[in-house]
Amino acid sequence: MSQENFDQLKEKHQHYISLGLNLDLTRGKPSTEQLDLSNGLLDATPVDVAKGNNPDKIDLRNYGGVSGLNAAKNWFAELLECDLSQEQLGMFVGGNSSLSLMQFALWLAHFFGLKDSDQSWQSEALTENKTIKMLCPVPGYDRHFSLCEHIGIEMIPVRLTGNGPDMAQVESLVKNDPQIKGIWCVPRFSNPTGEVYCDETVERMAGLAKIAGPNFYVFWDNAYAVHSLQANAKVLADIFRFALAQGTQDSILQFASSSKITFAGSGISALASSSENIKGFTAQFGFTSIGPNKINQQRHVDLLPNRAAIIKHMENHANLIAPKFQCVEEMLSEALSAGEFGQWSQPEGGYFVSFDTQPGMARRVIALAAEAGVKLTPAGSTHPYKKDPEDRNIRLAPTFPALSELKQAMEVFVNCVKIATLE
Amino acid sequence: MSQENFDQLKEKHQHYISLGLNLDLTRGKPSTEQLDLSNGLLDATPVDVAKGNNPDKIDLRNYGGVSGLNAAKNWFAELLECDLSQEQLGMFVGGNSSLSLMQFALWLAHFFGLKDSDQSWQSEALTENKTIKMLCPVPGYDRHFSLCEHIGIEMIPVRLTGNGPDMAQVESLVKNDPQIKGIWCVPRFSNPTGEVYCDETVERMAGLAKIAGPNFYVFWDNAYAVHSLQANAKVLADIFRFALAQGTQDSILQFASSSKITFAGSGISALASSSENIKGFTAQFGFTSIGPNKINQQRHVDLLPNRAAIIKHMENHANLIAPKFQCVEEMLSEALSAGEFGQWSQPEGGYFVSFDTQPGMARRVIALAAEAGVKLTPAGSTHPYKKDPEDRNIRLAPTFPALSELKQAMEVFVNCVKIATLE
Repeated sequence: MSQENFDQLKEKHQHYISLGLNLDLTRGKPSTEQLDLSNGLLDATPVDVAKGNNPDKIDLRNYGGVSGLNAAKNWFAELLECDLSQEQLGMFVGGNSSLSLMQFALWLAHFFGLKDSDQSWQSEALTENKTIKMLCPVPGYDRHFSLCEHIGIEMIPVRLTGNGPDMAQVESLVKNDPQIKGIWCVPRFSNPTGEVYCDETVERMAGLAKIAGPNFYVFWDNAYAVHSLQANAKVLADIFRFALAQGTQDSILQFASSSKITFAGSGISALASSSENIKGFTAQFGFTSIGPNKINQQRHVDLLPNRAAIIKHMENHANLIAPKFQCVEEMLSEALSAGEFGQWSQPEGGYFVSFDTQPGMARRVIALAAEAGVKLTPAGSTHPYKKDPEDRNIRLAPTFPALSELKQAMEVFVNCVKIATLE
Repeated sequence: MSQENFDQLKEKHQHYISLGLNLDLTRGKPSTEQLDLSNGLLDATPVDVAKGNNPDKIDLRNYGGVSGLNAAKNWFAELLECDLSQEQLGMFVGGNSSLSLMQFALWLAHFFGLKDSDQSWQSEALTENKTIKMLCPVPGYDRHFSLCEHIGIEMIPVRLTGNGPDMAQVESLVKNDPQIKGIWCVPRFSNPTGEVYCDETVERMAGLAKIAGPNFYVFWDNAYAVHSLQANAKVLADIFRFALAQGTQDSILQFASSSKITFAGSGISALASSSENIKGFTAQFGFTSIGPNKINQQRHVDLLPNRAAIIKHMENHANLIAPKFQCVEEMLSEALSAGEFGQWSQPEGGYFVSFDTQPGMARRVIALAAEAGVKLTPAGSTHPYKKDPEDRNIRLAPTFPALSELKQAMEVFVNCVKIATLE
């Protein structure tokens, strides 16, 4: 580094600008080649299957079945290794967006109560003229934060440790503030840090309801449950096992989606929770829909009939995207000697690399990159209210661009990091 | 009728009971043969179409496009004869359930305001400690009423005239009660009466916002826009034409769905409204979903590429279900001399026949029919809070059963009506 002076970096930057690049590392989108892996979903569905020759023995084309096909429930149970033979557990399978299920669950909890017997968060807040709060491990997923902000839930950031949230901090906050009604988690390959919650964290998370007031929910967004980049990636413990042992299954809302398994825009989604919660959720979801697109659910079951098929399919994904993560890692470690210019994650799965600049530089790096035609997620996006107090976290999403484009974008990026640091 | 004595009717009823029938006239479900008309939706989607060789020129498989494909917006514009070249108007195309769009619009209006600039109904209600109310033409659609009941909106029934709601009553109520924030309408082939709102009604409906307080919405559920049983069926005026003339387009929320055009469970849905409303709706929907199933939207556009194709397709539906409506009409008019035992609608389209018993008998008729294995929509379902003050309305849904089953169910039904009336 010492040979390269500031002027040279600026010159390089001007050169990148002159190339008129248009590269995008903003969103965790699957690439065209990844989508191609699931083109079987585009195949014809045999008429006799649609008409009733399917495991659920119903006409998939008609109305009905608010909570989804049994075959689709079993599919997600395999995916999540969730033991539906436990009668305390239940599963709801919906349309193409797990975010929509999170929104509906959040709004139910806030405005109405998830189950009939529950008090709504809002009614409590109105009575006591208090704000409802949720814990948000940071850096985290911007769309979780937007859901809270939209309906006026106050967000409290909590530290991530590399093994999940700092549970001492979480437990202390929950214990001392009954207005805290939930916590957002992406427990495996956390967005964006890539960390996997360790067993102890999962167990303590399952136990939070015993410390918290009533109607406390762990929003367990298991978006990357099977999205490992390598065979020996860290495994996530089954939170329901811990919850059942502690009798807290009513506090666990586990979400999953096939969006990053099959087609990002036309997958299927699931909520796994206590059977009581699923009952309340389904009854209230029944006011808003006569049922999901069951043909698309069956298409998924047919494409990937069991967990083994899903895991094999995810290996094919990994074969396509692992080289991109490797490219990011190599370019960062080659160009930026660790510590001096920042630090970054080395995820074993998921869709992101989390990069921390020196304090106070993320905004500047992102602006410089934009100037040179490389779009990065806006500064602060990984924090509640889009406010990164240290202005240092940048989320890199390497899956969508072609490897050559990614390489070019990373060249621009590391140059911007150097400039911002030396400025 | 005079020859047939009560004992004979009871004997017949016992005979029906002994047959162990299991017939269902409860829900407006398309029959298997109707669903077969759209089996083209099950065909393979060419990979090149999915990857970008489509009118929107995007990868249909990936994330994005919260408000739906442009091709799908144009499709619904053709279906509704809605002039999207008017820049004051906009369209949102969603997933498989228009009910979900209604729910979301209702919740937005109630909790947040549809547009950024709007006050929520709730904030007004909380300030003044008052209840929010909606007008409900009766008999009407139970799922509209459930949406209101779930979130605590008080429902005020208004009379239907055969040409739509009694607009003098509607206008007077709206004028005198600022807590009334909306009205539910199924303007063509109303569920269940089958009536079509006349032009004057549509025009006055479009003008309600000028009488009402702010943030008043006409929930215009045009569920049966193209669902006529005969070529010369009454036509519905375009409410947007009247609204634009009066500057009230912000008050019109027009919903549509392909559920009873293609596959009931996996169709596509739309909201047409002012461009300002669509902007606010889309922005807030964007918190809950990254976009709809665009492959299914494209499948619909490909199956029925224009209005002419849609209309031809609906003629094929009519060919299948008009004989069923004719069966109901014939059996009712043969068995029940008009007036003595009740009266019923003769719809030119839609999915229902509305039957009114003599006052106080609907519940009894439905119970008798159930006893004999014929399931009818629960008494009161067509009224808010499931309370039919006169206990007389019964909704008959003849489309799903085979003609032979329908005939048997209607035999049981007319016998039950006679028994209940003579008891």
